[in-house]
Amino acid sequence: MRTQVGIIGAGPAGLLLSRLLALQGIDSVVVENRSRDYVEARIRAGILEQGTVDVLTEAGMGDRLHREGLEHRGVYLQYPGVRHQLDFPELCGRRVWVYGQTEVVKDLVAAQLAGGPPLHFDVSDVAIEDVDTDGPRIRFTDAEGTPQVLECDVVAGTDGFHGPSRAVVAEGTRQQLWERTYPYAWLGILAEAAPATDELIYAWHPEGFALYSMRSPSVSRLYLQVDPAEKIEDWSDDRIWAGLATRFAHEGWEISTGPVIEKSVLPMRSFVSAPMRRGRLFLAGDAAHIVPPTGAKGLNLAVADVVLLSRALVRLLQDKETDLVDAYSDTALQRVWRATHFSWWMTSMLHTTGDPFDAELQLSQLRRVCTSEAAARELAENYTGLPFS
Amino acid sequence: MRTQVGIIGAGPAGLLLSRLLALQGIDSVVVENRSRDYVEARIRAGILEQGTVDVLTEAGMGDRLHREGLEHRGVYLQYPGVRHQLDFPELCGRRVWVYGQTEVVKDLVAAQLAGGPPLHFDVSDVAIEDVDTDGPRIRFTDAEGTPQVLECDVVAGTDGFHGPSRAVVAEGTRQQLWERTYPYAWLGILAEAAPATDELIYAWHPEGFALYSMRSPSVSRLYLQVDPAEKIEDWSDDRIWAGLATRFAHEGWEISTGPVIEKSVLPMRSFVSAPMRRGRLFLAGDAAHIVPPTGAKGLNLAVADVVLLSRALVRLLQDKETDLVDAYSDTALQRVWRATHFSWWMTSMLHTTGDPFDAELQLSQLRRVCTSEAAARELAENYTGLPFS
Repeated sequence: MRTQVGIIGAGPAGLLLSRLLALQGIDSVVVENRSRDYVEARIRAGILEQGTVDVLTEAGMGDRLHREGLEHRGVYLQYPGVRHQLDFPELCGRRVWVYGQTEVVKDLVAAQLAGGPPLHFDVSDVAIEDVDTDGPRIRFTDAEGTPQVLECDVVAGTDGFHGPSRAVVAEGTRQQLWERTYPYAWLGILAEAAPATDELIYAWHPEGFALYSMRSPSVSRLYLQVDPAEKIEDWSDDRIWAGLATRFAHEGWEISTGPVIEKSVLPMRSFVSAPMRRGRLFLAGDAAHIVPPTGAKGLNLAVADVVLLSRALVRLLQDKETDLVDAYSDTALQRVWRATHFSWWMTSMLHTTGDPFDAELQLSQLRRVCTSEAAARELAENYTGLPFS
Repeated sequence: MRTQVGIIGAGPAGLLLSRLLALQGIDSVVVENRSRDYVEARIRAGILEQGTVDVLTEAGMGDRLHREGLEHRGVYLQYPGVRHQLDFPELCGRRVWVYGQTEVVKDLVAAQLAGGPPLHFDVSDVAIEDVDTDGPRIRFTDAEGTPQVLECDVVAGTDGFHGPSRAVVAEGTRQQLWERTYPYAWLGILAEAAPATDELIYAWHPEGFALYSMRSPSVSRLYLQVDPAEKIEDWSDDRIWAGLATRFAHEGWEISTGPVIEKSVLPMRSFVSAPMRRGRLFLAGDAAHIVPPTGAKGLNLAVADVVLLSRALVRLLQDKETDLVDAYSDTALQRVWRATHFSWWMTSMLHTTGDPFDAELQLSQLRRVCTSEAAARELAENYTGLPFS
């Protein structure tokens, strides 16, 4: 088998890259070691930046998004006694959409299978070879058990934090890693309950942070800050709803409950690796960086990487110019660090640490964001996403 | 002896309070356990917010300040490869003045001794009594060794972090304390050298933070981040100048050196105590709160306290209304926490910790402040000082 761009991983980064390249006349093949069902069922982020929506729409992936996605003008910030709405269009002229990453992936998979570039699920034994030459290869075993060799001009590693691509970059470069593990986690539930709020609520509470979000007009997604060592078995649905009711308590307002259809504990981590390239292998999305979920930057950062990478690969493969691929890693990392800082800042402002001085700093910062136009705009610009360069 | 307001401590807070009260026809007496020479020689902060300059000017203390003070439109933020000027009037319509706290104190002492309320230096054995009654007292031994009793309507504790007033508040209230000791200190020098910069330079460098400031057209005040355990004896003038030259290095620019006339290591601490009142005893300035020097909030916060307290005392003693004294502590603490957060934020953005993830967060934040109007305005509004309420 031969293609121009071999893509490892059929998450949103790999699938969108394949599609953007196809729209520019560049061939690609996507290989994924999970099944289609698994990939389409993974519950992940649900907030799309303005720029992400624009890219998906331009790529022909906007139909269901615009029909079923919920356009949001802002968020609520809550702390004891106060629930304050930030209005993003008023603050910075941009907004966000609520549309699950799962749905984005379903749309991309459907388009790919309906006449798009080849997409191989259930592959195994993926190995990346000769990335320092102009003819890198991906070896894998296909779903039928047959060993395959995919000859490429370029390989894209969009295979997430646990995929093989980052290690291949590490072997051939002076790779630098930065990491921060936070001393708290999110206990997340998906509930069949109409959201009791029109926008997300980010709530600071002495018992810990809570986030009220939604996936549709009938499905709520809620999170509680917990200790990372907490076991999900120790959290009955009743205990979860009681914790949520306490942390979201606000006069004249009631939480709405319903059957819990999914629950899990998510760790909180920041991770960045650089460079995002070795020779003809390029990393994008979670393969190169992880942000904690506060601020919803993970998926949007992957999309930003892919937009940059698709332009660079078109320039390399069609114009035979290396300027954009040479600039790719440094350019992408500027945005990565901005989002990493913003995610860290949102996380640090909202999660209780047990230190009373931290608590007062957090409350002072929240009061400032809720009363100062400059501070609110700084949050709004970062939350809705800086324009793709 | 009898007065309306007994004031403990002849720093800028106590002296300004005495003057603001006198302008409203309220009597006061100031007692200070140090000598006039000592009080006038203490080297402290040197940046006055717009609001502080306005208050001093309205209090008749603006003549020398406007003649000798240096009006500054902004600051430089520096990190490797970049020296960026923030223009405060453009960002937020306000500015700051460079005029040493020492000079403010000299002006206030001179005015006080030239026909102002009584001011007793070199007192000892200060004790505060009966603050829960309408007739509190200050006992002290005067400079001649004679025991004195000062009968008051109100006592103001403007006696700094080490003075007796805060302990008296603690004994009679459920006092809360918040504290953070930072893992770095400032090595500060005063040098007879014309400043090589027109505005302050806040420099982030892998070896540590450095600050270039000035006291006059011929005197520079420079600081280096050091370990709090560093001994000043280990820092020769040559070593200090070499460190400063490294950290301020910028193409086409040279530091200017000269004789070092003072050098010391300053610890970095955040401290807040609440409430700022017990009965007829009111705390203001360092007696209630300490900020690290980054951002230059200490003196300005003391002035803001004193403005609020003087209004509250005028209302109490002339109108016999308790609303403003009852609101004093909570109102003052809002601003205290804003300034505490800002000082912590500036400190955290600029001081290296040895953690490479922290370093990248800091650089990302600095790049953001230097490229985003919203982020720059947020710094400018806090640095030049929010309007006095």
